[in-house]
Amino acid sequence: MPKIRILTESELRTIVPLDMDAVDCVENAFRALALENAVQMPPILRLDVPHSRGEVDVKTAYIHGLSSFAIKVSPGFFDNPKIGLPSTNGLMVLLSSKTGLVEALLLDNGYLTDVRTAAAGAVAANHLARKDASIATVFGAGVQARLQLEALMLVRPIREIRVWARDYRRAQALVEQLGARQNLSISAFEDPRRAIAGSQIVVTTTPADRPIVDASWLEPGQHLTAMGSDAEHKNEIDPIAIKAVDVYVADSLKQTRRLGELRHAINAGLVASDADFPELGQVVVGARPGRRSASDITIADLTGTGVQDTAIATLAFARAEERSAGTFFES
Amino acid sequence: MPKIRILTESELRTIVPLDMDAVDCVENAFRALALENAVQMPPILRLDVPHSRGEVDVKTAYIHGLSSFAIKVSPGFFDNPKIGLPSTNGLMVLLSSKTGLVEALLLDNGYLTDVRTAAAGAVAANHLARKDASIATVFGAGVQARLQLEALMLVRPIREIRVWARDYRRAQALVEQLGARQNLSISAFEDPRRAIAGSQIVVTTTPADRPIVDASWLEPGQHLTAMGSDAEHKNEIDPIAIKAVDVYVADSLKQTRRLGELRHAINAGLVASDADFPELGQVVVGARPGRRSASDITIADLTGTGVQDTAIATLAFARAEERSAGTFFES
Repeated sequence: MPKIRILTESELRTIVPLDMDAVDCVENAFRALALENAVQMPPILRLDVPHSRGEVDVKTAYIHGLSSFAIKVSPGFFDNPKIGLPSTNGLMVLLSSKTGLVEALLLDNGYLTDVRTAAAGAVAANHLARKDASIATVFGAGVQARLQLEALMLVRPIREIRVWARDYRRAQALVEQLGARQNLSISAFEDPRRAIAGSQIVVTTTPADRPIVDASWLEPGQHLTAMGSDAEHKNEIDPIAIKAVDVYVADSLKQTRRLGELRHAINAGLVASDADFPELGQVVVGARPGRRSASDITIADLTGTGVQDTAIATLAFARAEERSAGTFFES
Repeated sequence: MPKIRILTESELRTIVPLDMDAVDCVENAFRALALENAVQMPPILRLDVPHSRGEVDVKTAYIHGLSSFAIKVSPGFFDNPKIGLPSTNGLMVLLSSKTGLVEALLLDNGYLTDVRTAAAGAVAANHLARKDASIATVFGAGVQARLQLEALMLVRPIREIRVWARDYRRAQALVEQLGARQNLSISAFEDPRRAIAGSQIVVTTTPADRPIVDASWLEPGQHLTAMGSDAEHKNEIDPIAIKAVDVYVADSLKQTRRLGELRHAINAGLVASDADFPELGQVVVGARPGRRSASDITIADLTGTGVQDTAIATLAFARAEERSAGTFFES
């Protein structure tokens, strides 16, 4: 009977903080994605539960060289807040790449997804934003807005943080939550355009289904990461921007054509449905160029990939083994 | 923090035996599949792990009216037997249909799949085989061969059992394992054709990739269930038979066109790729005819569906709740 290690959300929060190790493991996952035959990543399985306004995404990827791979179950049930429950949660199942045996159950309620999503934002900024970027703007005021900012601070010398959200009070609440920090100015903005003006990095983290960033607002030298779009109907960025910027990079081109900001540019007839764009992994390994000058405008379109899940889950498992964390269960 | 019920294989073996309740719950799942808008069943997610001759299938389905739905993770790693491990195992994750919260982890190592697969065989025989069928032949000598026979005995007055396997000793071993039973003759056959002659029900349960049943062997009145084929390369039945028999029934026509015996008949040019056939659920609810006379030859092509997984997992969870089985875990 196989022994399965079970890790709870609180254990995972302790052993897998959002740090450079998390960023590095996600960067390595994108690197693998750019190499031929190093990754198997099937399309996302999506189940709809129409009677409860629910949906479940299942993502997975095998990365050659990693001892394990994850299968992630991510439910989103959008009426949950009405009964005091979070709309998203879920878990990851970690299997051995050698035997397929279940090695661990990561009962993270979505925490590892938060970390690997923020880590991808850091990877994108690290390879696409100006090295001297010091002003960062985030759209949205949820968990991911906060984590994206924390992730940016790992890779760029951020001195000023600006928060805009549709609901100004939520932006203010996030500013308070971030707290006072040395050499860092943090403020909430009411006007999204002003929040972007003069900033070097913009990250959008909202569930918007209509653009909240106008193409005309973008300035030379800026990098924009759009990470809110992971479903057909979501759309944060003016489709004109996708065509107009100097560099557009997808986490997975197959996915962004179908689920990302790119989809809306294709639907608007601005970009051909088979138009080729670099993927983040290709930029990371240097196979395709990213930013070419300090005045380039760059966009990273992040829909979330199974390789990130496998990377973060494998890191969590290794940490749990080192520290003997978790509980064993015989199946 | 949600409370998750964890059930081990041995607990599941105790609370979910292969009995008429299991058959009924799987029959209800097929019934739902025949009703409009009652089921959401996305295509199977399949991940290949080429460096270890491994693959993982993820199946799921939501059935309107059931309080839960399952996501099943089924790995098959075909080099495992070399190191003393079973090639297949896996688990099911049970989620609430209302909130998407994880309700239970069924660490069944494939046991519930065995039960729901055998139960589907019983449903097929119950709706397609002659009522007076008393002789049953099974091809293959593994766990599923034994369970299919047990399942047939739940729905038909079986008096004689015949076992054929490529390796005659394995057929003999299964006969021994089935043991002596009152009013039941059980024997191993060396000649597959003789094993079929005069039998009313034939079930094939092998991983064959070339036909092991010749179309010319089938006799008026017989029912054949092919359940070994769940992947593109598998093929147990002579493709000519698919075209020639009176009634061909798919568990899911979308799946059998791609993964079942039907695929090979389509590839051989014997059947059009969009040819319409009844599905088992349609026969169960009476929307399409099954057997029309005692002399019809019928075939059920079973590839395994997510609705069966959701049905058996929901039954397991209900039983566990009744009997307070399992262990609770706070995530």
